[in-house]
Amino acid sequence: MRLDRRFVLVALLCATLLAQAPPRMPAEGSERAIEEQFLSVPDPRQAEQHMKILTAEPHVAGSPGDRKTAEYVARKFREWGFDTEIVEYKVWMNYPAEVSVDAFTPAGAIMHGPTKEHVEDDPFQDDPRVVMPFNAYSPSGDVEAEVVYANYGRPEDFQKLTEMGVDVRGKIVLVRYGENFRGVKAYMAQETGAAAVLIYSDPMEDGYFRGDVYPKGPWRPDTGVQRGTIEYGFEHPGDPTTPGWPSTAEARRISPRDSPDVPKIPATPLSYRDTSPILQRLGGAESPREWQGALPFTYHVGPGPVRVKLHLKQDFGYRAIWDVIARVRGTRWPDEWVIAGVHRDAWVYGAVDPISGATAMLEAARGIGHLLQSGWRPKRTIIFASWDAEEQGLIGSTEWLEQHEKELESAAAYFNLDTGASGADFRASAVPSLRGFLRDIAKSVPSPKGGTLYDAWRTAVRRENSPTANPTAEPQIGTLGSGSDFTSFLDHSGVPATDIRSSGNYGVYHSVFDNFAWYKKFGDTNFLYTQEIARVYGLQVLRMADADVLPYNYEAYGKEVAGYLDAAQKSAAGQFGDKAPKFDSALAAARRFAQAGAAINALVAHAPSRVRDETRSVAPPLSLAGFERQGGDVERLNRILLATERALLLPNGLPRRPWFRHAIYAPADLKGYSASTIPGVNEAIQRNDAATTAQQLEALTGVLNRAAALLEGFHPASSELFVLRAVPTGLR
Amino acid sequence: MRLDRRFVLVALLCATLLAQAPPRMPAEGSERAIEEQFLSVPDPRQAEQHMKILTAEPHVAGSPGDRKTAEYVARKFREWGFDTEIVEYKVWMNYPAEVSVDAFTPAGAIMHGPTKEHVEDDPFQDDPRVVMPFNAYSPSGDVEAEVVYANYGRPEDFQKLTEMGVDVRGKIVLVRYGENFRGVKAYMAQETGAAAVLIYSDPMEDGYFRGDVYPKGPWRPDTGVQRGTIEYGFEHPGDPTTPGWPSTAEARRISPRDSPDVPKIPATPLSYRDTSPILQRLGGAESPREWQGALPFTYHVGPGPVRVKLHLKQDFGYRAIWDVIARVRGTRWPDEWVIAGVHRDAWVYGAVDPISGATAMLEAARGIGHLLQSGWRPKRTIIFASWDAEEQGLIGSTEWLEQHEKELESAAAYFNLDTGASGADFRASAVPSLRGFLRDIAKSVPSPKGGTLYDAWRTAVRRENSPTANPTAEPQIGTLGSGSDFTSFLDHSGVPATDIRSSGNYGVYHSVFDNFAWYKKFGDTNFLYTQEIARVYGLQVLRMADADVLPYNYEAYGKEVAGYLDAAQKSAAGQFGDKAPKFDSALAAARRFAQAGAAINALVAHAPSRVRDETRSVAPPLSLAGFERQGGDVERLNRILLATERALLLPNGLPRRPWFRHAIYAPADLKGYSASTIPGVNEAIQRNDAATTAQQLEALTGVLNRAAALLEGFHPASSELFVLRAVPTGLR
Repeated sequence: MRLDRRFVLVALLCATLLAQAPPRMPAEGSERAIEEQFLSVPDPRQAEQHMKILTAEPHVAGSPGDRKTAEYVARKFREWGFDTEIVEYKVWMNYPAEVSVDAFTPAGAIMHGPTKEHVEDDPFQDDPRVVMPFNAYSPSGDVEAEVVYANYGRPEDFQKLTEMGVDVRGKIVLVRYGENFRGVKAYMAQETGAAAVLIYSDPMEDGYFRGDVYPKGPWRPDTGVQRGTIEYGFEHPGDPTTPGWPSTAEARRISPRDSPDVPKIPATPLSYRDTSPILQRLGGAESPREWQGALPFTYHVGPGPVRVKLHLKQDFGYRAIWDVIARVRGTRWPDEWVIAGVHRDAWVYGAVDPISGATAMLEAARGIGHLLQSGWRPKRTIIFASWDAEEQGLIGSTEWLEQHEKELESAAAYFNLDTGASGADFRASAVPSLRGFLRDIAKSVPSPKGGTLYDAWRTAVRRENSPTANPTAEPQIGTLGSGSDFTSFLDHSGVPATDIRSSGNYGVYHSVFDNFAWYKKFGDTNFLYTQEIARVYGLQVLRMADADVLPYNYEAYGKEVAGYLDAAQKSAAGQFGDKAPKFDSALAAARRFAQAGAAINALVAHAPSRVRDETRSVAPPLSLAGFERQGGDVERLNRILLATERALLLPNGLPRRPWFRHAIYAPADLKGYSASTIPGVNEAIQRNDAATTAQQLEALTGVLNRAAALLEGFHPASSELFVLRAVPTGLR
Repeated sequence: MRLDRRFVLVALLCATLLAQAPPRMPAEGSERAIEEQFLSVPDPRQAEQHMKILTAEPHVAGSPGDRKTAEYVARKFREWGFDTEIVEYKVWMNYPAEVSVDAFTPAGAIMHGPTKEHVEDDPFQDDPRVVMPFNAYSPSGDVEAEVVYANYGRPEDFQKLTEMGVDVRGKIVLVRYGENFRGVKAYMAQETGAAAVLIYSDPMEDGYFRGDVYPKGPWRPDTGVQRGTIEYGFEHPGDPTTPGWPSTAEARRISPRDSPDVPKIPATPLSYRDTSPILQRLGGAESPREWQGALPFTYHVGPGPVRVKLHLKQDFGYRAIWDVIARVRGTRWPDEWVIAGVHRDAWVYGAVDPISGATAMLEAARGIGHLLQSGWRPKRTIIFASWDAEEQGLIGSTEWLEQHEKELESAAAYFNLDTGASGADFRASAVPSLRGFLRDIAKSVPSPKGGTLYDAWRTAVRRENSPTANPTAEPQIGTLGSGSDFTSFLDHSGVPATDIRSSGNYGVYHSVFDNFAWYKKFGDTNFLYTQEIARVYGLQVLRMADADVLPYNYEAYGKEVAGYLDAAQKSAAGQFGDKAPKFDSALAAARRFAQAGAAINALVAHAPSRVRDETRSVAPPLSLAGFERQGGDVERLNRILLATERALLLPNGLPRRPWFRHAIYAPADLKGYSASTIPGVNEAIQRNDAATTAQQLEALTGVLNRAAALLEGFHPASSELFVLRAVPTGLR
């Protein structure tokens, strides 16, 4: 696609004059009234009611309790006017049947576990339906072996053990939670020849070292255990027997034994109460001092003399799970789905994870429903999704996505929630194209602290950083890693995504104590931050659904990618020296992408505005009608904007894990939850593979040039005239 | 004193050409042979023998065991040919008579302490002569009150308690050791109105969090207690009843009650075993998270509900202490004393502190004695000093110094040792004028790790810093703070000083476990690092005693002070804004001092050399005789160099504590052991006192200009000619 020089020149002039103005999607008079109407709906008392009902009983994926929550959510969606269905998938999952962990030294037994999760006073802990602590997708097994302590179970931790002369082959590896995804711990132990894995919660990470423990405070008590999946989701998320396709009734299945996503050695989680006697009696060398946790003795690495006898019997089988999908069809662009998803299944009660998020989604949906009842209809199709079996491996979202891959090619956005509100600190992650969109929304939502959420967010970020931090700096928005349902949407299908939460001292993650009693004492006790999250969440949906021009900022995206490339270039120089591949073409492509994005920003910032932004003294913006009258082809522009996001997918996916196709983001390979940026390039550098680095740089360059060319291809007939008129009078 | 322009110009030319060559004091052929002879003497087996004898029984200052060690040291000095005397002072000191600490909550008693220091297996712990843990100079007292936890007891910790609304008045303040001098903890508690102080050793500082505890490892076991003085030595060190004059038989005494150096509220140290039940049951708010230590519960600040009943009965009185002073008179400059001192008294056995240092001194003295036996005599007087009652407050060294103030005006240097060798890591502190001297000596001493100590030291420093650190960087030498016997020499009398040690995992500081059994397992087990320290220590004495020109580098000193001024200027700008006093004159004076120092360096670097430095391709240096033949007046130069050090003393001393007279260094005011640099200025800034800051800047400017003028005043008759000849041929 060739570039029209005049268009570029004018657009660049405009872009320069307006600096980095992000695309603005403010509402016109009536739109503002609609937003106000929406914002008035989410309600703390209603939220509390939803949470009380949804956390009334344990509801692990596939259980009767889970089914009940699906029905409650579906009933509510229908009540509020959405077309709602409960979508069932049969997926391969396990529940624990028998778990025992016995530790002994040559002198005799020292621990018979696991100890039941129990504190002095908690009304929920004794329900017989509580699933005992386990790791999803651990195989059954009986192992007896000496124990080796391996810190966080990161690649560098196993490397350190090798340097220390400690052989983990045939041993039971004891690792602490933290720093990475627990599946990486299991994978590393498996790859280094360990016989089994015990994963415990050190009080330094989320126990007494952090603060008072439950029920006195919010942190993990000594018997508290973190359940969790160890599915190798960095290979594929979802049902491990349908890697890459949906688990529909007629679906082909591979044998779980052949699935690359299923661990081969047994693993089970432990409390620090049960771990302490094991770790205290480990012999061998002192652990490196940075491996020391907060238990009251010096940590050694072993092996032995402590031996553990591990007995795990897992109840594997195909189980029904239930996504609840609610939708309202868009009037103008029904194929451009705006999807808002939160999972509903919990390891036990899941007051924070995920019911605080599910509750916020319900209140957002109720707000949209309110608008529907008054006759309003969205321009794009809105879908609220209550996912199931997220905890086992993002299964509900991934199977649904795999069933709707074709339709998702034109999805406008995926908005995620998970742990909705566990405290007062707003946090967000998003693709660079949606960061400005999210910040703008924060300016429209009031904070329980007073003022707007945007102000409170920026103040908090400034307080956390040094006092000398730039007081006008924008609040930071992180990169999307993995560990929640946005993963497949972004990393497989290229749907631009955001993820928000309101954080606190959440020390009972994945334990029986993440329940309504904890939440009322230490979470969002009066549901004001749930209300805030519901408002932000719903406003994202509302603005995205009704935006005349899709609010994607590709200038920001291109600049962000250029930053990733700069960092990778330094890594490559360090790794390969003179033999480092050249980054020039990739950097040029990133800059071209940013420049093309800036040209579009300059157009749309002043064209299709529907509400005056009183904070900017610009000439009255043209209406959408005006834009179109002057030759602005909104349909075409939106199609290009959508295609640009998809242009960031690698045609062949990532090396070694082709299901992950996004060129800019992927779940970190062996590092866990945090995002890997420009993963093809960075992972090749980390593997010291210069040839693949060069090849991935080339692929990335292609992707960026393709995206840039798409944007450059937008060339409305009278754009020059239009753009000149859109330049603010004050600047002419 | 006016400056001769020609001298300055030529000297500066030379200085520029030679960059920053420090004064070099290498030995001529015969001198090198003498050094080699000296270095061959210090011996690991002999060192072990000294230590065994000196740690055979407890020997706290003033005890019969202490007297025995004085006699052993004196006998050895005499054996080796030194004029030796045991100098007695009667000083005000306390031993503990009765100590009890009982803790209880409303529900009943929770701790009856202190628990005796005891581990499973230690041959020394049960000696009845072991002094029970106490804080020297704590008054007697009976206090019962609620407990408040105050972290390290720093000014900012008490400030934080105030912000939290916790009133410490009338309370028993519990603080942990670390971060500052324990006397500061007591002082701050007293000043804020607390009734008493408990100071405990948190396992995060030197217990199991750091590594295995004694007897399995070198770190502090649960019953281990850190004894120590809380004398307000930042007011004056030494006998508190003779502040500023020696405690001779006929000395005037002030009442201890009137002494500014004696704390007014009771204090006693505790083990973490005894502290744990108290701290675990404290109520009130959670402590700030950075106040959390390594005990296995969340630390709260109180007050109460735990109450402590503290009973302290101290046995105060005038007690005899014994310095052992050994000397050999100098042949050419007998009044320019070169003093090497180490204390000998210990809280209990003191294998590391101070006997590893005393042992190294003995081996250094034996080496010098060896030279004496072969007929060699030093040019300057050498004094080896074995101080007493250092632990109570640097008493032996301070009283002796106060008795010899006049003679010390011409002392050439004071070389300190304290904890001689507790491991393999060489560490040094020194005045800037002696840093090059010390680094040069490290080049002449072999390391047990192979190569020279200088190489090993530099490699270790590089390893500790980032891998990208400059590989040719000099090893760092610290500033002299307080906490050992160099304090009075430097800070009161202006004698340039160094302090060296070989460090390790020394976790049993000031406890009964700092004994020969610990040392043989975890200290310098084969005494090779004691040998290394003895060699460095003795070589300092030897080179300083025989140097024709005193090896002081004032260029380095001036630059260092300019650096302190730069930092202080930034603090002042932060504190006072526009009203900050001007630093220009002081900075100019520091630069003038450095420049005058550079001129002298350029002269002496090429004049009185006695051994060729093969690493530099310069013209053959002139001999001392040549220097003198050409009009270089060595006597005058040395007098000026000595006077320059004394010129750094403030005529009126520091504000608020005039006994401390050094303009550049003082013990940190309320911060403890670490040095306060340009203390008059920096402490006035910290106190937010702009007027005093300006006045102290003026005083400092005067000091620096006076020092510079002294150096500039050295003007040998034919110096121009001499200097030009001394310029390396390659550079002409």
